[in-house]
Amino acid sequence: MPVHATEQTGSLTAPSGFSAAGVSCGLKKRGPDLGLLVSRAPCTSAWLGTTNAAAAAPVRHCRAKTGSDAIQGVVANSGSANACTGGRGLAAAELMGVTAAELCGIAPASMAVASTGVIGAQLEMSLISSGISAAAASLSESGGPAFAKAIKTTDRIDKEGAVLVKLPEGEVRIGACAKGAGMIAPAMATMLAFVTTDAGCPPELLEEILSQAAAESFNCISVDGDMSTNDCVFLLANGQSGVHLQQGSQGAALFAEGVAAVCKALALKMVADGEGATKVIEFRVAGAATPEEADLVARSVARSTLVRTAFYGRDANWGRVMATAGAALASASASELAADIYYEDACLARAGEASADPVGRERLDEIMSRTELSAVIDLHRGAAEKTVYFSDLTHDYVTLNAEYRT
Amino acid sequence: MPVHATEQTGSLTAPSGFSAAGVSCGLKKRGPDLGLLVSRAPCTSAWLGTTNAAAAAPVRHCRAKTGSDAIQGVVANSGSANACTGGRGLAAAELMGVTAAELCGIAPASMAVASTGVIGAQLEMSLISSGISAAAASLSESGGPAFAKAIKTTDRIDKEGAVLVKLPEGEVRIGACAKGAGMIAPAMATMLAFVTTDAGCPPELLEEILSQAAAESFNCISVDGDMSTNDCVFLLANGQSGVHLQQGSQGAALFAEGVAAVCKALALKMVADGEGATKVIEFRVAGAATPEEADLVARSVARSTLVRTAFYGRDANWGRVMATAGAALASASASELAADIYYEDACLARAGEASADPVGRERLDEIMSRTELSAVIDLHRGAAEKTVYFSDLTHDYVTLNAEYRT
Repeated sequence: MPVHATEQTGSLTAPSGFSAAGVSCGLKKRGPDLGLLVSRAPCTSAWLGTTNAAAAAPVRHCRAKTGSDAIQGVVANSGSANACTGGRGLAAAELMGVTAAELCGIAPASMAVASTGVIGAQLEMSLISSGISAAAASLSESGGPAFAKAIKTTDRIDKEGAVLVKLPEGEVRIGACAKGAGMIAPAMATMLAFVTTDAGCPPELLEEILSQAAAESFNCISVDGDMSTNDCVFLLANGQSGVHLQQGSQGAALFAEGVAAVCKALALKMVADGEGATKVIEFRVAGAATPEEADLVARSVARSTLVRTAFYGRDANWGRVMATAGAALASASASELAADIYYEDACLARAGEASADPVGRERLDEIMSRTELSAVIDLHRGAAEKTVYFSDLTHDYVTLNAEYRT
Repeated sequence: MPVHATEQTGSLTAPSGFSAAGVSCGLKKRGPDLGLLVSRAPCTSAWLGTTNAAAAAPVRHCRAKTGSDAIQGVVANSGSANACTGGRGLAAAELMGVTAAELCGIAPASMAVASTGVIGAQLEMSLISSGISAAAASLSESGGPAFAKAIKTTDRIDKEGAVLVKLPEGEVRIGACAKGAGMIAPAMATMLAFVTTDAGCPPELLEEILSQAAAESFNCISVDGDMSTNDCVFLLANGQSGVHLQQGSQGAALFAEGVAAVCKALALKMVADGEGATKVIEFRVAGAATPEEADLVARSVARSTLVRTAFYGRDANWGRVMATAGAALASASASELAADIYYEDACLARAGEASADPVGRERLDEIMSRTELSAVIDLHRGAAEKTVYFSDLTHDYVTLNAEYRT
């Protein structure tokens, strides 16, 4: 958390002027599945969407609008991803947006759309339509938590947060919620995140702040290395606090820290809630020759089923980390990998081989039984670094994903 | 199988002039763990080793010899990989080779070394040494199967094969064995394969034949997308059949087909024996813009934990295949992925969305319950193709790899 931010229990509707709702319309077997978020005042906005070549209809819909009208509201559903649904899917996303905009009294072009759930099925528009009506009727300034519940799929926990940031210009609030528990890759996947603020902010600055925050949060987490068709992050700023940020100001920098902190907290909740996960590993690659190399090694380790099952089994099997790093560097270097590996502050390997000073069994057991642990590989090839966060691969992950749909 | 090859039950010692042995020396808790193979006559040889930057000591040892003396024998152990063992490990590999060469009566430079097992521990040389003595004393022309058992780690089944190839120049035999069940990636990993022949063959031709055979077999399989520190393939030709192959001859082409068939059969046995696997998927990418793109998509699908758990759950969840292909193509193309997906001959998706003519539940259930099934994604972007073979991701995989060492 940045120095000037106070953590709050709070949600998407913590900042002034935002209303939200979450209702059940029958897309999922149980629980709320349609969410609506709207600002009473026009906003500036920033948006990030998946680069997946099979991007879902709502993502294509939002992308087509980017650069034109600012987003003032979002309608989102869970249960069905509206992905791989062709022209009919795109028309359905359009219809969702128009319907919600009309009921909220804002311009159709200002209503964004998001979906998450099973890929390949067409949306049931009669359900969606009745859901939007019900949500619009129950919009409320305390509706943030209901919205957060409505976007969940395999998520076990609600993921929300809010901060109060004290700027030289005055106080602003940032609120947020997200969904994501599986199919999350280091390239921001099967996740949706919504961030609201009552700060006023020029759109270019907002985009810069969101990109930077995502790079350090949603783009650094991995649950299973897969990348979805539907991931998006929205940031809406409505200026209702009366504070208006200027590019390059101290206030803008503090505000950016606040957005980054909120995004980071949501990202870590996603990893902890990773499908079947029993632990979160903060894995740092140090001493890489280039940032690209650091990134490549970090993502390879985060994706390795062997590394991830070893963490699940509480096995300090650093050899699998070394082998995975070596595989990632196969084409980069013919020289021998002489890396050091640490789990917490215990040195397991030095210069590519087992540490000459072995770590005691008791100490290792203590480290491996933690639900949050940090590990480092120092490649000794340069000065570049990268940190990723990933979960272990467990029996429950297999169960959940073998049985998700059938 | 090529037209002129007759499949045989047989092993590494099926070709004339090869002896082998497999003994227990205590490196593994149970079962044989040291194998020795030698030809009575000098050989020409070809060798392929992992490109992993953390390549094991025996791989470095073999690589240093490549291009000098031909290999006439191999000493191999399971239970300990001699990987990430530094200078001491390299000296241990050297000592293994010298000891075995001396007892077999061949030049030290002609004895290759291979190891497989846990990474990061030094070899127990007293055990290795007594194992080599015992193996040398029990070398036999029927010792192929014993060698095959001695190189197993998590393998459930022995992997052997032999063919008799009828060439215009006469008959030659090809024998082979391999180990590999986990940590097998499309780049030839945690596998060892040994191929022998009594054909005579110039080393350049032998290298060409082995590279081609590996490209179509060991380099097209994936169990978990990981890549090991120890993988190697050996091909030894001793000319004892009296048949000597010439580059460009019809005999050479038929012989190459024989080697490729033997390697392919071993590779498929590895996938079928993949840790915890319940099925083997033959996955073909068609219609890719370039061979590199075909390769990228094929490997991404083979590595996807979501795709692999769906196959385990008998869930025809083609959306995960589309999403994975889309993610692989994220940087390649901004245009929408309009791919077709087939499981066997059932069309599940056409032009990027669910097939308009849905496949019946009964037919789908029948397909998804097969232990061997084929799937195709046609990207409609060009004419390049790639086929890979992979196994499903199961509870048993997690159990095996979470508990392998502890």
